[in-house]
Amino acid sequence: MEEIKRVEPRTLSGFMELLPQDQIKFNEIMNVIRQTYELYGFLPQETPIIEASEVLLAKAGGETEKQIYSFTKGDTDLSLRFDLTVPLAKYVAKNYNELTFPYRRYQIGKVFRGERAQKGRYREFYQCDIDIIGDDKLSIINDAEIPSIIYTIFKKLNFGKFVIKINNRKILNGLFDELEISDKMKEILIIIDKLEKIGMDAVKEELVKIGVAEDKIQKIENFFNITGTTDEKIEKLRKLNFSSQIFNEGLAELEEVIKYVRLFKVEEDYFKIDLTIARGLDYYTGTVYETNLVGYESIGSVCSGGRYENLAEYYTKKKLPGVGISIGLTRLFYNLKELGLLSENTAKSISKVDIVTMGVGLENAVEISNSLRENGIKAEIYKEDTKIKNKFSYANNLEIPYMIIIGEDELAQGKYTLKNMTTGEQELKKKEEIIEILK
Amino acid sequence: MEEIKRVEPRTLSGFMELLPQDQIKFNEIMNVIRQTYELYGFLPQETPIIEASEVLLAKAGGETEKQIYSFTKGDTDLSLRFDLTVPLAKYVAKNYNELTFPYRRYQIGKVFRGERAQKGRYREFYQCDIDIIGDDKLSIINDAEIPSIIYTIFKKLNFGKFVIKINNRKILNGLFDELEISDKMKEILIIIDKLEKIGMDAVKEELVKIGVAEDKIQKIENFFNITGTTDEKIEKLRKLNFSSQIFNEGLAELEEVIKYVRLFKVEEDYFKIDLTIARGLDYYTGTVYETNLVGYESIGSVCSGGRYENLAEYYTKKKLPGVGISIGLTRLFYNLKELGLLSENTAKSISKVDIVTMGVGLENAVEISNSLRENGIKAEIYKEDTKIKNKFSYANNLEIPYMIIIGEDELAQGKYTLKNMTTGEQELKKKEEIIEILK
Repeated sequence: MEEIKRVEPRTLSGFMELLPQDQIKFNEIMNVIRQTYELYGFLPQETPIIEASEVLLAKAGGETEKQIYSFTKGDTDLSLRFDLTVPLAKYVAKNYNELTFPYRRYQIGKVFRGERAQKGRYREFYQCDIDIIGDDKLSIINDAEIPSIIYTIFKKLNFGKFVIKINNRKILNGLFDELEISDKMKEILIIIDKLEKIGMDAVKEELVKIGVAEDKIQKIENFFNITGTTDEKIEKLRKLNFSSQIFNEGLAELEEVIKYVRLFKVEEDYFKIDLTIARGLDYYTGTVYETNLVGYESIGSVCSGGRYENLAEYYTKKKLPGVGISIGLTRLFYNLKELGLLSENTAKSISKVDIVTMGVGLENAVEISNSLRENGIKAEIYKEDTKIKNKFSYANNLEIPYMIIIGEDELAQGKYTLKNMTTGEQELKKKEEIIEILK
Repeated sequence: MEEIKRVEPRTLSGFMELLPQDQIKFNEIMNVIRQTYELYGFLPQETPIIEASEVLLAKAGGETEKQIYSFTKGDTDLSLRFDLTVPLAKYVAKNYNELTFPYRRYQIGKVFRGERAQKGRYREFYQCDIDIIGDDKLSIINDAEIPSIIYTIFKKLNFGKFVIKINNRKILNGLFDELEISDKMKEILIIIDKLEKIGMDAVKEELVKIGVAEDKIQKIENFFNITGTTDEKIEKLRKLNFSSQIFNEGLAELEEVIKYVRLFKVEEDYFKIDLTIARGLDYYTGTVYETNLVGYESIGSVCSGGRYENLAEYYTKKKLPGVGISIGLTRLFYNLKELGLLSENTAKSISKVDIVTMGVGLENAVEISNSLRENGIKAEIYKEDTKIKNKFSYANNLEIPYMIIIGEDELAQGKYTLKNMTTGEQELKKKEEIIEILK
C-alpha cells in the first residue's frame, strides 16, 4: 500500500465546531428562535452565502469592508455575506413585484467576518434575523411586536432574567435639534453610546472636548439622568416641553410602542425605556432595541435592532421602511457556555432509547425498533458484536435515557427489559407498555 | 440628500434563492430528512464552511480540486468545503478521544463547487448526509439500516414510486478477480458505470478497446445480464460458483444486507439488487446504494452512498470504516419543481391565521393573537391602516388559511368572525371555539 502523507486535523481559530452534546444544545436554542419567529407568522428566507461583490458592497465601507472575505473565481468578484440585512435589501428590491407587503421574513444563517481572532469573537457565526418591511410606510405597532418576540424567545430559553431596553432615535435627534447642536449629533451619539461603559463624568469630558457648551452639556446630562418607572420616564420627557417636532414625534412613537408592548403581555420588569441607547449604525431612524441578560451585562446585548427608514436605497428607488432584530447565536452560545448558563435539563442525546441484544439475534432488536419509530420514538439499535459491557457503556457515554435489553429470557416471555438509565431501575415489559412509557 | 449610486440587485447564476412559498416547501423537505435522521438517533454535527486549505485538500485532486473556492485572508490559505465527508473525516480524527463509537452523525449544510454554470447545476447547494463510523470495525447490519432510512424519507416525502438500488463492490471486484483482470478493474468499472446510459453493446465495444479478451467479455455480459427477483439474483450469483474469496465475501454481505432490509420492513418493490452500480468514487469498498424516482430516472440518483474501509486515513492512523449516504437537496428540489412533483398539499404560508380589524382598535387583535400563540397557533396581525380590501388581499396573496375579522358588531357580541379562506365560509365564533378549530 502506498505511503500516505497525513495532515494534522485542525479547525481554524474563530470557527465554532462543537462536540455532539453541545451541538444538541445549540440546535435546541436555534429551534426555539425559529419556532418563535414562525409562531408570529414570519416567512422563511434563504439567500446565498456567496454574492457578487459589487452587489454585496453597494453600501459597505470602512471597518466592515476590511473584514469581508472576497475572492475571484473565473472573472467574477465574489464575497461572502457579512450580515443578513444587505442580502435582505437585495432580495426585496429584486423580488419587489413578487412579494406581498408588509413582507415579514426571518433568516437564520451563517455570516462571515475576517475579524482579528480573540476569545468569543467568531469569523463564521450565525445570525437569526427577523424584519418587517413596509411598502412606502409601516405601522408603528410593528415596533411593539418585536419586543414581544424577544420576550417569548428568551422566556422559553430560560437563561434567567433579561431586560429589553427600548428607545427612539427621534427622541435623541430631537434633543440635539432642541439644543441646536444637530451638526454634532453623530459625534455626540458615539460618545453617549459609551455612557454605560465609561460613566457620565467621562462622557461630559468628551463632550467638552468636541466643543459642546457647558449649559448644553447640563441639559444633556439632565436628559440622560431621567429615571423612574417607564411611565415616569415618559412623563418627565413630556415635561421637558421641547418644541422640536422630531422630538415630539419620537416621544409619541415611544408612547405608542410602550402601550402595545404591554398589550402584547410583555411583563413590566422585562422591558424598560433606556434613553442612552443609540445603536452605532447610522441607519436606525426610530425605535431601537437592546437586550441584556441581567447580571451578565458585560457580554453586551444579546438581541438588538430597530426601525430604519429605507432598507434598500442602494438597489431601488422604492421607499422601503422596516423594523427588525438580530440574535448573534454563535456568540450567545459561547457566552452561555462560558457563564455556565446552558440548562442541564435539556436532552443530551437524540435517541430516547438504545436497543441491545444479549446472546440472541439482532432481528429481535430490529422488530421492536420498527414499532418504536412508527410511534415517533427516536430509537437506535446497538449492532456491533461485542461484550455486553461495551454495549452498556455506549448508552451510558451518550446519556441515552433508556435501554431495551433483549436476551433469551425476554424472548421466552415475549417481553423486553426496559432500563431507565437515570434511575438504574429495570423491568420486564410488553412492547405496547414500552411504547406508552417512551411516547 | 446626497445622490445614491444604485446597483442592480441580482443573484449569481448557480445559486438558489427562492420566493417564500417555494422556500416553505424546501424547508418542509429538509425537515422530513432531518426528522427521519433523528428518528434513527443520529447525532447532529456542524462543521465550519471555511477550513484551512491544507486540511480540506489533504486528499482531493483532479476535477474536484479545480472546482474548490479557495482564497487567502491574512497569511492563511482558506477553502470552502466542497462536501461534508472530508469535514467529517477531519472531525472524527480530531475528536477521536471525545467521541463514542460507532459514531452516528448527520450533517445538513451547504457545500460549494465552482462548476460550470448550467441548468440544474448549483455552485452552492445543500447536502444532507448521514454516516455511521466504526472504530476499527463496523457491523454489516448498519449497511441494512441505511436503505430503511432512505425508504422512510422518500415514503414520507411522497413524490411517488422510488427504488433503492443496492450492490456490493466486493462482488464486482470479485468478478474481475475471478476473471484475472483485476489490473483493468478501475477502467472497466468506469465503463460499466455507463451501462444504463449507453447500453450493453457500446459497453462491450469499449471493453474490447481496452483489451479485454472476448471470452471474458462474455462472462462479464452474463454477469450483468443476471435478472429476476432479488432472491433469484442471489441464487444466480451463487450458482456462478466463483472461487474468488472477495466475490464470496461480497455475496455473503449482500445476502445479509437484503435479509435485514426486509426485517426493517422496506417494501419488496422499493429496493432491488443492481449489479451495475459501482459509484464512481474509489473509496467505496462494500455495499453501495443509489435511489431513483421511478419514471424520472433521467434526473439521476437522488440519494447515494455506500460503505468505505477507511474514512480518515489522511488525518489519522486509526482505521475508521463507515457507511453513509448523501441527499443533494438543492438539486433534488430543482428537479422536483421542474417535473411538477412538488406536492400542492403542503402549507403555502407560515401563519395559520391572519387577524384584521375593521373600524376598531388594534388592541382587540393583539388580545386574541396572544391567546392563539399561547395555544401554539401561528398567527399574525395585519397592522397597517388601510382599506379593508387591501387587508383581505394580503391574506389572499399569502394564501393564509384563515382570517379573524374584528369589527364593531363582533365586539358588541364578544365574538370574532372566523373566515375559512379556502371555502369562503365565515361564521361568528367565541375565542375558545376559534382556538379549538385552529389547533
